[in-house]
Amino acid sequence: MSFSLTVLGSSSALPTSKRFTTAQVLNVHERFFLIDCGEGTQIQLRRFSISFLKINHIFISHLHGDHLFGLFGLLSSYNLLNRKSDLHVYAHRDLEISLEHYKRHFGSDLSYSIVLHPFTANKSGMIYSDRHITVEILPLRHSIPVVGFIFREKEKPLNIKKEVIERYDLGISDIRKIKEGKDYIAPDGTQVPNEKLTLPKLKSRSYAFCTDTTVFPRLVEKLKDIDMLYFEATFANKDKKLAKLTGHTTAQQAAQLARDANVGKLLIGHFSTRYKSITPLVLEARSIFENTFAVEDGDNYPVELQRNAPSGDLPRAGTDV
Amino acid sequence: MSFSLTVLGSSSALPTSKRFTTAQVLNVHERFFLIDCGEGTQIQLRRFSISFLKINHIFISHLHGDHLFGLFGLLSSYNLLNRKSDLHVYAHRDLEISLEHYKRHFGSDLSYSIVLHPFTANKSGMIYSDRHITVEILPLRHSIPVVGFIFREKEKPLNIKKEVIERYDLGISDIRKIKEGKDYIAPDGTQVPNEKLTLPKLKSRSYAFCTDTTVFPRLVEKLKDIDMLYFEATFANKDKKLAKLTGHTTAQQAAQLARDANVGKLLIGHFSTRYKSITPLVLEARSIFENTFAVEDGDNYPVELQRNAPSGDLPRAGTDV
Repeated sequence: MSFSLTVLGSSSALPTSKRFTTAQVLNVHERFFLIDCGEGTQIQLRRFSISFLKINHIFISHLHGDHLFGLFGLLSSYNLLNRKSDLHVYAHRDLEISLEHYKRHFGSDLSYSIVLHPFTANKSGMIYSDRHITVEILPLRHSIPVVGFIFREKEKPLNIKKEVIERYDLGISDIRKIKEGKDYIAPDGTQVPNEKLTLPKLKSRSYAFCTDTTVFPRLVEKLKDIDMLYFEATFANKDKKLAKLTGHTTAQQAAQLARDANVGKLLIGHFSTRYKSITPLVLEARSIFENTFAVEDGDNYPVELQRNAPSGDLPRAGTDV
Repeated sequence: MSFSLTVLGSSSALPTSKRFTTAQVLNVHERFFLIDCGEGTQIQLRRFSISFLKINHIFISHLHGDHLFGLFGLLSSYNLLNRKSDLHVYAHRDLEISLEHYKRHFGSDLSYSIVLHPFTANKSGMIYSDRHITVEILPLRHSIPVVGFIFREKEKPLNIKKEVIERYDLGISDIRKIKEGKDYIAPDGTQVPNEKLTLPKLKSRSYAFCTDTTVFPRLVEKLKDIDMLYFEATFANKDKKLAKLTGHTTAQQAAQLARDANVGKLLIGHFSTRYKSITPLVLEARSIFENTFAVEDGDNYPVELQRNAPSGDLPRAGTDV
């Protein structure tokens, strides 16, 4: 039950010899969600051995080239690889213009369909839901419409304790009911509470991706208790004015937000190429929120499975219940 | 007086983790000419330490994504770097549509001008000329209009032998005349032939770039005596039919052409990703034309300066002339 992020590009608008422009892949139970698609994304997918064909959903935060210009090469490569399954793209509605331009001039006879799921980026809401996760957009503040994406695992089913099945000689129908949260009524009428029969629930994990934005108060509530937050830290705090002017965030501001929102872990990236070393940005963030990591291309960050605190132990074998 | 090629991308339509799609830079006397601009070109320029800002001329062979999709990111980066000087792009006239799309949606307020020099790709001709070189286009044969580019150094001025100046006590005006090819008439009326006074001429060097094409007989004449020829070798000879079907060339065919056209050196690239190793392609080419090299991203191939064979030695000091 993977829930892990691979960073494909971590630079800001200008790529460097070591950092490509923005792209990430979130692996949720071996389904791969591509988030932004900067130039060279398909090369990074190959470098980091992520199968192209496991990607069916691409989320584009905004229509600036450094978050988008890898898309068209990827679309062409899918065609060369004779992709058949639909490719779903979630982006601001204006992407349709560029997709039409691409299809007319470069991809007139694609082997697959591109399904655009357009949004307007002016209000929050769920844009995707499957068996395992939901994806919500979160309007951000930049020079053009931009959204963050919040990926949340759905509530997980209860797991029954193995030894319980044998002890009470449970049938399929009993097991189903217990997994639904019901107590067990033994043939002699004894009622066994559900929490004695099941393991504490696995927590639903969450990841939020926010880039190309200034910070603003409402983000604290919107990102509350997120397990892992990627937030841009284009600038160091000494360049705070420049950050505001260009619609970006400093490492310190990202860390303050992470602290106030009580997130589990903060990843920072989208670093301006003006900084020869990003160590000062990491230090200024960690002084406020210790669990901060500066991402590099190729980094992988899993969110581990955790169970809620147990509500009570199962009585030992042989004990009456 | 550099004349050297750096390979930025050497794969065919699909990039790999080691080979980007097509792009090259020709350094002619420290002026850098970009040839094709596959996705990630700007990243490769940084990796191989080639200054963006030395590039003022970009030549695009044809409008397939794997030769073009790096252009738009590069245009945006020039803007971020606050480029001021005009950027000249030489391409099929249909590129104007994509440039207009780019400017409208991604580069509305560029810091510099893009000057498109459009061609129709249906006839040969010179498209560029400066103090040092000319560039000609050569129509090729593919599924869409495509041209090769031939870069030729202009004829170089004569260099006067150092010892001659002292021996005949030459003045500025004498030197100028000798450099123009004239003989020297000494005060006593003795005529010294120009070839006794000057070094054999430096040869003008040439480089031709041909990709995404089948081979056809007229190429032999068009590429006659080229010093260095890059020719695509997408396929091995065993896949000759596929090469023809897809408008490409085999390594063997490229080598036959190089031999028949009497080129100095053959570079092959644009390899199909179907081949795990390209050694068989190199071997089949070398069996026909030994001076063949399979390019890799980052390779540099200089064309060395050479003089024509001397027409006669200067008489030794003290000898009557």
